[in-house]
This record gives sequence, structure tokens and C-alpha cells, in this order.
Amino acid sequence: MINRRNFVQTVAAAGICRLSAATEPRIGVAEMQAQLEALSVFGRQAGGAFQDGVSRIGYSDADIAGRQFVMDLMRKAGAQVRIDTAGNIFASRKGSQPSLPPVLFGSHIDSVPSGGNFDGDLGSLSAVQVLRVLNDAGIETKRPLTAVVWACEEASFSGNGLNGSRIVAGKMTPRELDVVSRGMTKSEAIRRIGGNPAKLEQALIAPGAYHAYVELHIEQGGTLAREGVPAGVVDGIVSIDDYDVTVTGVANHAGTTPIPDRQDALIAASMLTLAVREVVSSEPGAQVGTVGHMEVLPNATNVIPGEVRMHIDLRDLSSAKLHRLGGKIRERAQAIATATRTQISVTQAGHDESATASPEVQRAIQSAVNKLGLDSRHLPSGAGHDAQMAATLMPMGMIFVPSVGGISHSPKELTDWQDCANGANLLLETVLALARG
Amino acid sequence: MINRRNFVQTVAAAGICRLSAATEPRIGVAEMQAQLEALSVFGRQAGGAFQDGVSRIGYSDADIAGRQFVMDLMRKAGAQVRIDTAGNIFASRKGSQPSLPPVLFGSHIDSVPSGGNFDGDLGSLSAVQVLRVLNDAGIETKRPLTAVVWACEEASFSGNGLNGSRIVAGKMTPRELDVVSRGMTKSEAIRRIGGNPAKLEQALIAPGAYHAYVELHIEQGGTLAREGVPAGVVDGIVSIDDYDVTVTGVANHAGTTPIPDRQDALIAASMLTLAVREVVSSEPGAQVGTVGHMEVLPNATNVIPGEVRMHIDLRDLSSAKLHRLGGKIRERAQAIATATRTQISVTQAGHDESATASPEVQRAIQSAVNKLGLDSRHLPSGAGHDAQMAATLMPMGMIFVPSVGGISHSPKELTDWQDCANGANLLLETVLALARG
Repeated sequence: MINRRNFVQTVAAAGICRLSAATEPRIGVAEMQAQLEALSVFGRQAGGAFQDGVSRIGYSDADIAGRQFVMDLMRKAGAQVRIDTAGNIFASRKGSQPSLPPVLFGSHIDSVPSGGNFDGDLGSLSAVQVLRVLNDAGIETKRPLTAVVWACEEASFSGNGLNGSRIVAGKMTPRELDVVSRGMTKSEAIRRIGGNPAKLEQALIAPGAYHAYVELHIEQGGTLAREGVPAGVVDGIVSIDDYDVTVTGVANHAGTTPIPDRQDALIAASMLTLAVREVVSSEPGAQVGTVGHMEVLPNATNVIPGEVRMHIDLRDLSSAKLHRLGGKIRERAQAIATATRTQISVTQAGHDESATASPEVQRAIQSAVNKLGLDSRHLPSGAGHDAQMAATLMPMGMIFVPSVGGISHSPKELTDWQDCANGANLLLETVLALARG
Repeated sequence: MINRRNFVQTVAAAGICRLSAATEPRIGVAEMQAQLEALSVFGRQAGGAFQDGVSRIGYSDADIAGRQFVMDLMRKAGAQVRIDTAGNIFASRKGSQPSLPPVLFGSHIDSVPSGGNFDGDLGSLSAVQVLRVLNDAGIETKRPLTAVVWACEEASFSGNGLNGSRIVAGKMTPRELDVVSRGMTKSEAIRRIGGNPAKLEQALIAPGAYHAYVELHIEQGGTLAREGVPAGVVDGIVSIDDYDVTVTGVANHAGTTPIPDRQDALIAASMLTLAVREVVSSEPGAQVGTVGHMEVLPNATNVIPGEVRMHIDLRDLSSAKLHRLGGKIRERAQAIATATRTQISVTQAGHDESATASPEVQRAIQSAVNKLGLDSRHLPSGAGHDAQMAATLMPMGMIFVPSVGGISHSPKELTDWQDCANGANLLLETVLALARG
């Protein structure tokens, strides 16, 4: 345990940030490293090390053990801890004006299978550290503060992510509770982490109940790292349109079927894969489009493919742009079907609304960036986050720190300890700014 | 059993072919149907019908039962039956000049899993029918005749096909005998159909031992059916070049990785799939090229593909042309790798030599076609056949009959009964012509 005095020395020695006064509360590089390493053991493979990543699937035993570890930290930071009926963990700290809506901030600690030790963990542990340094420094804020660890953010359980935050936003359908994944229903999963699936309405957060939501997260893309910028102020979280595509041709003998007679589903699927890239690149902007999943049938070396199933993922801040791009891709698909004498069905499988970061929270983050003397840039989030659910209930903002090589959802996911500490102190200053308002 | 008199009536009633004399031996439509239906029960799924296809994997119990059925037919046709050490079945009929090399003709009766009832079966049963009608008619040929059913032609056992014919041609390596497939070594498999894997050298056929080889087979492609031509004279069997391809990119988050930063293995694989089609279509000829197998990793909807494994199959009568096309595809692959910042490795996995049908046997087939008054066309075989092994030992020719819709290796494989009988009578007349020489 680092006490306040040697913590300040540690911070100063590491040159983490410009300290405006020796008494200003700061979160140190060494303690962020220690905390992230301590959490990483829950879900680590037997005999593995920190850099081997983590498999802390939401609702799993590893998740439950990690949650227990985090709740202990919260209590040591002087916070009042409770689990809502959705299984989300809330750690509350009083303010000088207890009747004001609190500032909410946090992230998640569950991971994808074979994931990294920064996605979610950084924001969650930093939120607890914010409470701890304020407690250690005896600083009282005007508004109450609440750190949150959302339940099962990743889509590793049942294919739907943002579970805890979707419940508080009233966006989880009752039928989803009966879906079985990893040997249990979602109801059973929620119950085993201390929730109560029969009373999820008690978890709903009323608009106005909180003043604002802030989430610190690794970027997961390579923009900040490539540009050497340590801090990102998120403009908003992209909208996602998903399409399931089935290309139907005619399976036939690869040796005996002349080229002009072929109705090759993989030729059509290849043309469509390239068309998706062309369409998303055909207009300016940060929109992206990906074919990540493709299944070829019968997938034999000497049989012309008779069917290909594939998936298109389109993302942009603008739902209107996504809709327009989706329309262009449908047009291209029909032209390809005609040219290859195949049938191509393009079915929209999902639509996630975009979430805009509120100007007020962005300003608070920008003032924290300025106070810490860091370079920063504004950027959108291409990944989904619990923040997009929080944004339906309160003003929302996100802080990004660099991902080395832009790699995420992989054991190779990495953020420099210095960037981790910078992020934690940005969260601290942002929360303090919002708590004054 | 149809006796000779009502057989001729059946043939005449069905208008199978122009009979030059009432006493001319002919194989009837009804008996070809009866024979193919009778063989189809061996390997038929429980409760299934003829049109549900067959799974008569080489060396399986169903194969052994089917072989027994065919050997009984051979004996009833007056032939002397023996199994060589490779497990091939030979049915011999004496000629008036017993010292002359016999005419060899036949096919196989094993099938792919969920295959059809014509691939191999038609040529094998027709060969037995040739012996039967000559026996019934009391016709003596100058040369001896030998019908053959080759062991395990399909690649369903251990991935290597043409097993029996490769052994007689001395093309099976000793180590192949130890490969385990479907729960047994190839040695054990050969032994269980009556062969002797310790004495395969006894199965070798010396060049000159036979006068010629003729194989009747369904086309398996759609050329004859589409053109409404009932008979094909095969020019030769194509050469096959196989390439294993691995495209290595960088897996990354589909939402957070800007398009210009991507090293998407599936984009490169799609470009290469289309390049294969373009290269094989870039010069005149019957060459074909196919990407039938593709595996995408990690194959998640929201992850940019980091690796794609695929397979290229190129076929043409000219090995030189295949070599040239392969070189062009390698060049295209390297250009695509550069353009997409991926690595593409292209490794040749196999090369099957082409086999040319001998002019003498082609002329014999053409004279049979003319005698039966059928339309015909010359065409290559895009599929491999036992005939390509026989071609290394003796003059070879093949007769094709139409495949409805060009479909093969499928329960939907179909050839009209009339076309089956035409094929059998073409085989009969070709064998008679060759036996005179």
C-alpha cells in the first residue's frame, strides 16, 4: 500500500504530469500498474503471465472473483458498495450537497476470451482510484460521486454485450433472460453475480438521477498511438449496421464445369467483399465497413462453392450515412448477383444507435487535459461501450488513451503504464470538474 | 432375367438405336435400369430410395457387398473372375486367338459419401453387360476380353483416389499403405476386399499385356446435356495443378481500425479469388481454375480477418499451359500482397499428369458412334479417372454420356436410362472393333 506521502514522491519521480501543487491528488504510474496486474490474475490461464492476457468472461467464476477484488478496493477507498438487480456494482461517496445528482464514472472488468488486461479494467480501476485519492486527501466534492463496474460488457455471453448498462437503460428484452449461453440462462447468470433477474425494473436509472457519466477506456484503435497523442476526447460512439448475407450459386465439379457455365458463390462473395470496401471508401469521413465472417459451402477443394454466408459490419457516427452506404451495398450486391447468375440476399441483422458525447462533458475532459498539460485530439469511438447506454439517461463523455499498435481483444493489447496513469488523472480531474457544477 | 429374344424386342420397342440386324447383340434400356437399381442398394441409406444416392466408400462393407454382387453377374455372364493383389476385379472371356493381348474395359463401383448411382457404376455394369450379351449371342471375338472393376477410385479413403489402377501402374508408394483412414490402414483395407498388400508387385500390369483400355463414364459436366448430344469421345484427361495459399494480414477491431490502416487478409483473398478467374479466362481454351476451399481466421463478425487459407485447383489437358497459368497467378498474388500490405504464400500441393486418349481407341469409339447413328462430340475429361493410370500402360479411350444438369458427386447425379443404354452399346461396339484388330 502506498501512503499519500510516498505516492506523491512516486508521482513526482515518475514525472507523470505537471503538478500544480504538491498537495494536488494524483494517481501514480506504479499504483496503476500494481492494480492492473493484481486484477489480471482473475481469469489468467494456469501458469500464464500478465502478457498472456485474460479470459474473464462475464458471469464466470473468474468474473465473480475479479468483482470481489474490485469491491474490496472500493470499500478500502471508503465507498459504500451495492450491487443492483442487474449485477452492476456501484460505489458511492457522499458530497457536500447530498441532494444533488451524483457524477457517475466507471467501465467494466469482464473480457472477451483470450482478451487483454486493459479493455475495461483500466477505466474500472481508475474509477476506484479516483475515490481512493480523494479519500486519502480528505477532499470533499460538492456533488456525490459514484463509481460503477457494469456487468458483462463484452458479447462473450450469449452474443449480446452491454448487459448491465442495457438493463439500467431499459433496453434488455425479457426473452433475452431465457437465452442459454455457456451452460446457463442469462437469468441464472445475473443471479450468480448477485443480481435479481425477477426485479430488473429496480435497476432502471431514471433520467436526471445522475449529473453525468464519464468513462475512461483504451482507444482500441491506432490513431492516438500513431500520432503520439496521449489523450483522446471522444466525440461520440459510432452507430453500427449489421447485415447477414447469403450468396446462393450452384455447387458443381471443379474439373468438369466450364467457366462460362459456373454459378460460383465464392466469386460473387469475393466481388461483394471488395464492393463493401469500395463503397465505404467512396466518400470522405471516418466510416468503416468490414466483412469479418465468411463461410463457404461445401468448402471442398474440387467443388465449385454453391453457397457463401457472410456478414457485413458498417460503422459511423451518422446513422443516415450508414443507411445510405447500406443502400449502395445492396445495389452492388444485386448487380453482382446478376453478373454471376447467383442469388444474394442481404438482410439487416442489427442497428446500434450512435451516441453523442455531451458538449458539457467534453469541455470538462478538455479542461482536465489542459490542466495536465497533455496533447489531445478529438476522435469518435469505433467500438461500442457502456457509455452509449448511459448516454440515453444522462450527459456522457469518454476519455481515450493510446493502444499500442491499435491492438485490442487480444493478449497483445497494451497501453503504456504512463498512459494508464495519465488516463486515471484525466478521469480524476474531469470528475472533479463535473462535481463542482 | 431377360432372355435374348424378348431383350431384342425390348430394345426395338424402346427405339434405343438403329439396329442393323435383328440378331445384332444390344444392351437394353430396361436391363441397364434394372442393373443400376440393383447395385444401388449396396450403400443406400436405411429407408432411402434410388434417388437418395449412395455412400459406397471404397473398402467399406457396402463396397464389399457391391463387389460380390458384380462378381456374381460376371460369373453368370460366363466370365472367369479373379481378384488381383490390389483388390481389382478382372472378368476374362476367351478369344479365338488366346495369345493376343486382350481388350480391357471397365470402371469402378465405389462412390464418394452421399454420391450418385451413375459415377463408376454405369461403366462397370455396362462392361459386365458386354460380356453377357456376347455370351448370350454366342459371339466369339478374335482377341480375349477382360472387364475390370478397379478398387477404390474415389478419394474417399485416405484422400488419395485411383487406388487400384495406381497400383497396377506402379504409382502407389509403399508408405501410402500405412496411412490410416476410416479406422484402418490402406494395407488392411486392401486385404479386406481380397487383395494382398504384401504382394502388390504381382498386380503390376506390364506394358503390352493388354491391347487397349476403354472406359464408359458419365460426363459429370454439363456440356453434352446442354448441347443435346448423347455421346462424347474423350480427347484426354486433364492435368491438375493444386496450390495451397495462405494470406497473412493483421487481425484487428472492425470498429476502431481506419480503412487505410487495415491489412485485411480477406480483402487480399477476395482479390486473389477473382484473379484466378481472370487468369484462367485470359486465354482461349477449356482450362478451368477454382477456389473451392477458403477458411477465414478468426472469422468473427467484428474482427478484421488476420489470415485466410485457400486452395487453387487448375486443370487443362496441357501441363505447360497450367504451368504458365500458375506463374501468372503467383505474379498476381504478389501484386495483391503489395497492394494490401499482406503476405501471400502460394505453394504447389500437387500435380497430376494429363493423359491423352489414343487416336486408335478414339477412332474405334467414333466408329461405334457412327454405327449406332448417334450425334457425338469430342471433349476433354475435367475429372480424374482410372483411365489415366491405364493410359500409362496401354492405348486408352473414354466414352462419355450426358449428366443431367452436369451434376455429379451428389445424390442428384442423373443420366437418362436411354443415355445409359446408348453408352453400354457404344462400349460394346468399341470393344468389338478393338477386339478385331
